[in-house]
Amino acid sequence: MKQASTTLCIETPGPGLTEFTGEVAQWIQAQSMDEGLLTLFVQHTSASLLIQENADPDVCRDLQTFFERLAPWDASLYRHTTEGEDDMPAHIRAALTQTSLSIPVIDARVALGTWQGIYLFEHRAHRQQRNVVLHLMGN
Amino acid sequence: MKQASTTLCIETPGPGLTEFTGEVAQWIQAQSMDEGLLTLFVQHTSASLLIQENADPDVCRDLQTFFERLAPWDASLYRHTTEGEDDMPAHIRAALTQTSLSIPVIDARVALGTWQGIYLFEHRAHRQQRNVVLHLMGN
Amino acid sequence: MKQASTTLCIETPGPGLTEFTGEVAQWIQAQSMDEGLLTLFVQHTSASLLIQENADPDVCRDLQTFFERLAPWDASLYRHTTEGEDDMPAHIRAALTQTSLSIPVIDARVALGTWQGIYLFEHRAHRQQRNVVLHLMGN
Repeated sequence: MKQASTTLCIETPGPGLTEFTGEVAQWIQAQSMDEGLLTLFVQHTSASLLIQENADPDVCRDLQTFFERLAPWDASLYRHTTEGEDDMPAHIRAALTQTSLSIPVIDARVALGTWQGIYLFEHRAHRQQRNVVLHLMGN
Repeated sequence: MKQASTTLCIETPGPGLTEFTGEVAQWIQAQSMDEGLLTLFVQHTSASLLIQENADPDVCRDLQTFFERLAPWDASLYRHTTEGEDDMPAHIRAALTQTSLSIPVIDARVALGTWQGIYLFEHRAHRQQRNVVLHLMGN
Repeated sequence: MKQASTTLCIETPGPGLTEFTGEVAQWIQAQSMDEGLLTLFVQHTSASLLIQENADPDVCRDLQTFFERLAPWDASLYRHTTEGEDDMPAHIRAALTQTSLSIPVIDARVALGTWQGIYLFEHRAHRQQRNVVLHLMGN
């Protein structure tokens, strides 16, 4: 049994979902492990991780719209407003989605379903650079 | 340290929670590991995983009602409607719950609390067959 | 490769977020592992886990307020009311957050971002004692 880890830096253009399945798959392949467990961990509290459909791009747009309505940019709703009206809604949207994801690796590939993609979900108003730690353990 | 994996196929009768704690426990027992880490991963984006109370069945019904209200079947709310009015709400409900779960295995048993059950949360309108990958690593 | 596990008992004073990053970091340090994977698992269905900002305490208050509005203490909304008006909203809030968290350990430390803290999210009305299983696997 061995392990490996790295940190991906994902650039996001503002609020919404940025797919990085390809970067993950490429790193997995370079580790030459047949079977194992992949963990993804985002080192931020105003961005999150999500596995979602990567077929119709409208799914990502509708997800973004849903979270905008559920936790709107409206400073009158929040105490924490010093970092901008987008910051507290960002924390809420992050709390409702994932900080960590675990995906089995089988036959040297992440065991995603046919339509599943791995996304960085940006919740802040402006472009950001986000760190996602990847950790792989297996044989 | 060793590892094992399998794929469970869970039949769901339509929207709501289907418990499969028993299937998981049975597979764990067959692996003869005393201590380790179990990962569950659902290979779909319109169904999800949830650990919830398995004592009063009304808890599952109330959970279902809550998600029906939060992300209703109402095509006027969504762009992605080509796969039916239930598909986009299904993606949203999946985003709000879990694609992966990690549970320690201690003394050859999953370390669930007294009232915790493992559920497949179906979000599509009709009966489905859902794949859940189980991965176990330990001794 | 080796593994270790323990159970932390976290006292909560009622609804809201209780940080226990320090307890986790202390236990990690005592295991003398340089690299590995930490799993946290809460053995309850009316409390949950969350990684959130630990800089401005208003973030935690706003998170609590958000979940109070989203799943209110209002018995008219729920079937499951026998355990009190706070119990079903507690299950819903737990379903929307995390039962398990996975965090890579790198250079003998959990790989949290600068502002990330690990929280027990209490959803019941009164003080509780909550069990969180920690499992560490690595070298």
